[in-house]
Amino acid sequence: MLSVTILGNNSAVPAFNRHPTSQVVTHDGTNYLVDCGEGTQIQMIKYKVRRGRISHIFISHLHGDHYYGLVGLINSFNLLSHSQPLHVYGPAPLQAIIEMQLKVADTLTCYDLHFHTLTEAGVLVDNDKIRISCFRTNHRIECYGFVFEEKEGKRKLQIEKVRKLHIPMTFYSSLQAGLDYITPKGKVIPNDSVTAAAERGKKYAFCADTKYDESIIPHIYGADMIYHETTYLDNMREKAELRFHSTTRQAAEIARKAMVRKLLIGHFSSKYAVLDPFQEEAREVFSNTELAIEGNTYEVH
Amino acid sequence: MLSVTILGNNSAVPAFNRHPTSQVVTHDGTNYLVDCGEGTQIQMIKYKVRRGRISHIFISHLHGDHYYGLVGLINSFNLLSHSQPLHVYGPAPLQAIIEMQLKVADTLTCYDLHFHTLTEAGVLVDNDKIRISCFRTNHRIECYGFVFEEKEGKRKLQIEKVRKLHIPMTFYSSLQAGLDYITPKGKVIPNDSVTAAAERGKKYAFCADTKYDESIIPHIYGADMIYHETTYLDNMREKAELRFHSTTRQAAEIARKAMVRKLLIGHFSSKYAVLDPFQEEAREVFSNTELAIEGNTYEVH
Repeated sequence: MLSVTILGNNSAVPAFNRHPTSQVVTHDGTNYLVDCGEGTQIQMIKYKVRRGRISHIFISHLHGDHYYGLVGLINSFNLLSHSQPLHVYGPAPLQAIIEMQLKVADTLTCYDLHFHTLTEAGVLVDNDKIRISCFRTNHRIECYGFVFEEKEGKRKLQIEKVRKLHIPMTFYSSLQAGLDYITPKGKVIPNDSVTAAAERGKKYAFCADTKYDESIIPHIYGADMIYHETTYLDNMREKAELRFHSTTRQAAEIARKAMVRKLLIGHFSSKYAVLDPFQEEAREVFSNTELAIEGNTYEVH
Repeated sequence: MLSVTILGNNSAVPAFNRHPTSQVVTHDGTNYLVDCGEGTQIQMIKYKVRRGRISHIFISHLHGDHYYGLVGLINSFNLLSHSQPLHVYGPAPLQAIIEMQLKVADTLTCYDLHFHTLTEAGVLVDNDKIRISCFRTNHRIECYGFVFEEKEGKRKLQIEKVRKLHIPMTFYSSLQAGLDYITPKGKVIPNDSVTAAAERGKKYAFCADTKYDESIIPHIYGADMIYHETTYLDNMREKAELRFHSTTRQAAEIARKAMVRKLLIGHFSSKYAVLDPFQEEAREVFSNTELAIEGNTYEVH
């Protein structure tokens, strides 16, 4: 199961009890942290996100509301005796910023801390469970979105047929892997006669901060869910353009053109106390839109 | 009036809804911020501390729980169009750490941001209302405490006597300043016959992070209130010593020997869910001890 838990849904300045950007993508027991605004570790405690299960952190860009909480989290991992390696992905200066702060505090992490510098679109993580890649967005400074693609699962045994044919249990895993079964007498049982197709792997894309830009579409095309920023309502298009941000209808337009299934919107400007109009406006263009609300978990279906 | 509002009373890792160190010293309409752990700006919103009234920030040392919230606050001041100059005092690497983060975000502050590097004990601010100075404490890395000394106020007019002698109102301010009044006929009315002494200026000391060290006593001697860390209960003296922190009885001992009026204790370790034992232990040595509780304001009497 792939899901996303929102820890912060606000833009630059905290307001109305909304916090700066951070979200946790959970897949198969692993928590991947995407962005880490100030106070993220406190939000994690509040929403019972298990910090110990975080092995990868992805930072989209170096505006403070997307990473000022990172050094505190790295430091807390140390004080909490985190043991597994931590991989941090972000634009080039991030490593120097963090290391400088650890150095002046005379701190050495008790776990392996690996920095990976983002420079262009590409694959960051690729194992038998998930592929995570990044792409450039169009923001005032260098900025990256992230795509999480679950690998296709195992084929499903049609257990009644399997039993009827007396296939021994020791062959179940090779059936799940797609191999045919050959009986002791040499007869071939075709795989698809006793198994069903595996569930398609889900795809989620975090589109970071960006102005309206259709060049991101190839990266997020056909995703089951995307998160796209909507800093402003649609009557603020000029301001959005000027600040390299998007409006409700622009985010929804991207979702529509990219043929995604669901759109999650967030990164709301501190000028808005009430968020309902964001959902209403976006839904006029793309009906399956939902507000990203702090503490909520959104399953990718 | 001199008062202290607690924004964070916990040590290193946030826990039990307690936050890292930060407090606001308020005097005559100005807010002086002392330390700025992660989430301080959010605590300010929660406890209705007026950010716009902050002109000076004092950072005791560069362990993250004392300054990771500073860059976010500086950034928010910018986004909120703060206009008055901001003076930041802290150990040497602080300026480089903050400036590096502003630079990678391509941010120029819209207000004057002045860094003042602490290198030794001395006076930092001295005007007609207050004197603020710093002193070294004994911690694992370079660390400073801060002393706030209110200047003595004006002498108080004994208004009935003043009226009886028909002293014109235009002379009231010189009487308050301590001058004698000379009647049109040349008779001298001695100042102290028509005024009472000004109220003594109050003194508050923030003792930062420190192991038990009597060398701080001359700096905080006779203060009306001090804040002294008590990271641990007294059965943890060895650990406290090892980590350059203090226990309840050690803090109380310093308060007693420094002849202060009131002791405020904080910087509680995340291992303690309940704080009452801190107060109980400290009071056995120094009775006028109070826990520093987040959101509470303590007047310096």
